[in-house]
Amino acid sequence: MPHLLGLQNFPAADLRDLLHQTLAAKHEPARSKPLAGRLVANLFFEDSTRTRNSFTAAAYALGAQVIDLLGSSSSVSKGETLIDTARNVEAMGVAAVCVRAKQSGSAAMIAKDAGCPVINAGDGKHEHPTQGLLDVFTLAESFNRLDSFDLTGLRVAIVGDVASSRVARSAIAGLSTLGATVVTVGPPGLVSAGFGAAVSHDLESVLPMLDAVMMLRIQFERHADGANPAPAGQAAKSGNIASVREFRALYALTAERERCMKNGAIVMHPGPINRGIELDACVADGPRSVILRQVANGVFARMAALAWCCGVARGG
Amino acid sequence: MPHLLGLQNFPAADLRDLLHQTLAAKHEPARSKPLAGRLVANLFFEDSTRTRNSFTAAAYALGAQVIDLLGSSSSVSKGETLIDTARNVEAMGVAAVCVRAKQSGSAAMIAKDAGCPVINAGDGKHEHPTQGLLDVFTLAESFNRLDSFDLTGLRVAIVGDVASSRVARSAIAGLSTLGATVVTVGPPGLVSAGFGAAVSHDLESVLPMLDAVMMLRIQFERHADGANPAPAGQAAKSGNIASVREFRALYALTAERERCMKNGAIVMHPGPINRGIELDACVADGPRSVILRQVANGVFARMAALAWCCGVARGG
Amino acid sequence: MPHLLGLQNFPAADLRDLLHQTLAAKHEPARSKPLAGRLVANLFFEDSTRTRNSFTAAAYALGAQVIDLLGSSSSVSKGETLIDTARNVEAMGVAAVCVRAKQSGSAAMIAKDAGCPVINAGDGKHEHPTQGLLDVFTLAESFNRLDSFDLTGLRVAIVGDVASSRVARSAIAGLSTLGATVVTVGPPGLVSAGFGAAVSHDLESVLPMLDAVMMLRIQFERHADGANPAPAGQAAKSGNIASVREFRALYALTAERERCMKNGAIVMHPGPINRGIELDACVADGPRSVILRQVANGVFARMAALAWCCGVARGG
Repeated sequence: MPHLLGLQNFPAADLRDLLHQTLAAKHEPARSKPLAGRLVANLFFEDSTRTRNSFTAAAYALGAQVIDLLGSSSSVSKGETLIDTARNVEAMGVAAVCVRAKQSGSAAMIAKDAGCPVINAGDGKHEHPTQGLLDVFTLAESFNRLDSFDLTGLRVAIVGDVASSRVARSAIAGLSTLGATVVTVGPPGLVSAGFGAAVSHDLESVLPMLDAVMMLRIQFERHADGANPAPAGQAAKSGNIASVREFRALYALTAERERCMKNGAIVMHPGPINRGIELDACVADGPRSVILRQVANGVFARMAALAWCCGVARGG
Repeated sequence: MPHLLGLQNFPAADLRDLLHQTLAAKHEPARSKPLAGRLVANLFFEDSTRTRNSFTAAAYALGAQVIDLLGSSSSVSKGETLIDTARNVEAMGVAAVCVRAKQSGSAAMIAKDAGCPVINAGDGKHEHPTQGLLDVFTLAESFNRLDSFDLTGLRVAIVGDVASSRVARSAIAGLSTLGATVVTVGPPGLVSAGFGAAVSHDLESVLPMLDAVMMLRIQFERHADGANPAPAGQAAKSGNIASVREFRALYALTAERERCMKNGAIVMHPGPINRGIELDACVADGPRSVILRQVANGVFARMAALAWCCGVARGG
Repeated sequence: MPHLLGLQNFPAADLRDLLHQTLAAKHEPARSKPLAGRLVANLFFEDSTRTRNSFTAAAYALGAQVIDLLGSSSSVSKGETLIDTARNVEAMGVAAVCVRAKQSGSAAMIAKDAGCPVINAGDGKHEHPTQGLLDVFTLAESFNRLDSFDLTGLRVAIVGDVASSRVARSAIAGLSTLGATVVTVGPPGLVSAGFGAAVSHDLESVLPMLDAVMMLRIQFERHADGANPAPAGQAAKSGNIASVREFRALYALTAERERCMKNGAIVMHPGPINRGIELDACVADGPRSVILRQVANGVFARMAALAWCCGVARGG
């Protein structure tokens, strides 16, 4: 059973296949519907309207119908386990299950002995492979690497709350597999060695050398000390950021810093953006930004992932 | 890009075109699906199941699929702006966006620089143009004006909480454009000049002259002093109603008052009805009531609006 | 107008017809879509993701589209009555309404004077006929009675919180109609005479004679003293269970008790399962368990119910 659980240790040939399928979906989205009459289930134990709707749009584009099973309204609140819920949805005859959950490893746990393909739509701080796929695709598209998806020579920084970010993990894996050089940038509490990428704590020194900057949202909701950062000016606790103001002073991609980027370098963001915190509005909306193109490509990447997992991908 | 943001200052020719399309949708709902393979997004920052489902039913009838983005579960709660959310949904490749929001002017704000048509599904106290469209259509249908949609000579009262009502604003604009005479009726705190219609504080004196009475729900949730009216018998604050009992004594359409209406006059209500408050149950269910026909026509009006905005309306 | 409100007093011929349609749907799910271009509404005043998605999957399989109207987000919170909400949904032109509600009798109340077929998707402690249908079907399938659906000679126990269970009521009715012998088993507070089945308070003594055991979840949320059972060791109040521990000691289907069941006997559960309370995990996942087959058959049973109510069932 082919699952898409993560881009770490994902074979390079399969990754390139998925990227070619993404390109094909983009060029000819309205081809015959290979999942017509089939069902795709969104099993979102942690909701995310954007990602869920992107999977939904992808499933519709392939001709499938979609059922949504959201955490708060699901039987999980009646005491049923995550796996029982997944097995039940599978028993309804779905072609594939897209799983989002707070716990790292949830998608893999569900995929074990699953009766249908499982796509990880984000599991805790672990992986978000379709986001990685769309990130890699958008980078390749921006630098005309759509024939081979060889990213050799491209330098990418992932900036901000890397420690909490499944997006970063998947992007690092995908980018590295295809030959790009990745550096993670942020304060010591949010960026460290061990994620398979170089580490820098100095955005301004690396910025002029980069081809792409991927800014991340600070995921306050995943920090151990609660939903909010420490008040401005107060010392950081337990390795996290001291304050939004301090973070912004050193790591935000401001209009001023953006001017140090080289010609043709692009700005990426997985969304949702906190304008004025990690990214200035004029940069988000400026000529370097490929943020909305990432969103558009996300639908094509998920079409590719669904078709690939369900065994209905086009001939390579 | 054709949007449908409001009926105030909306060209009469376009309004008549939309009404003809509504009629065509009603007569032949199952024609070839002009939006097959397309996506329509419901962007409801303030939920309304009825209106949302009516848009959904209309989109399905045109062959489209639908994605729902609801306020409480959306990225807005992660700090994303309303416009960023809209731009993201557009980037997913939708054919049209139906927007509902608490803030007046939201739909127009999103329509500015939008990548696809925007339909206002209700913005604060401002406008609800597809409701206005279905109201005008239902009135024309009830009085055999479906050939020209000329409503000259018809007298309509809009009764109750006019000040809070986007439904009233859109209806007044649409009815006036087509030649009907409109009077708004209610207590001084809820009805005043400046809405483009005559004002009366005496329902019983105008009732015998009317061809149609449109009753409005008291929108407690939009009154500045909170969700509940002042207790019965207590004086009104800040121009609002003193009490439900007092409102009912003067402005409810009771069974007794209904008897003063002339032959053939109709009763309308945009729903949801508070039976026994603004409208007696036997009137809501009685022979003058066209309330459920309004609901049925709502789907056809929204089919017309979607088709018109997406450029797939039938030849006039 | 054909409705499906309950299996009590439901004609045996109609029940057999529905079971034959269920079998036909299972054998040839992808036949021409008899509800193509139609809408089915899920009117769930009390949410249940599993049942709702099962109806949705069934409607999709028949070619219909689906609109969901859920309690918490519906106009009911604006003061509209349940019946007004139902009439509104009907007015939108739906082919059928699937109703779930907390109050027993809700579906029948809505069906009275309804403009379209109504299917009871669970009303309080009263009935859940499509669950009964899938239970009967799964039993017949397990014992090779699919030709006649004659269940004579089969002995079935329904164990646990029978008093709160609409599932039990519908199953008892359906099973009895087709000739099976039903005994309800549980503590005096949860099981009593008057449900049309024999009563036992001793699971271990009846277990060796059974062909099927249907375990029920304790529905803490329907007990008068609130959402939680009395603390362990404390005396039962008002006829309810004393404690989960005590219930489990006497009435759970443990691995040990399962060994007393006869060859070929099956284990059923309507879900969601509370593993380790009423049912041991190894029994739920063991060779006797048909629990996931019940879920799969649920979609076919609901296809049969929708097609039958909408008058598009296949020739018998």
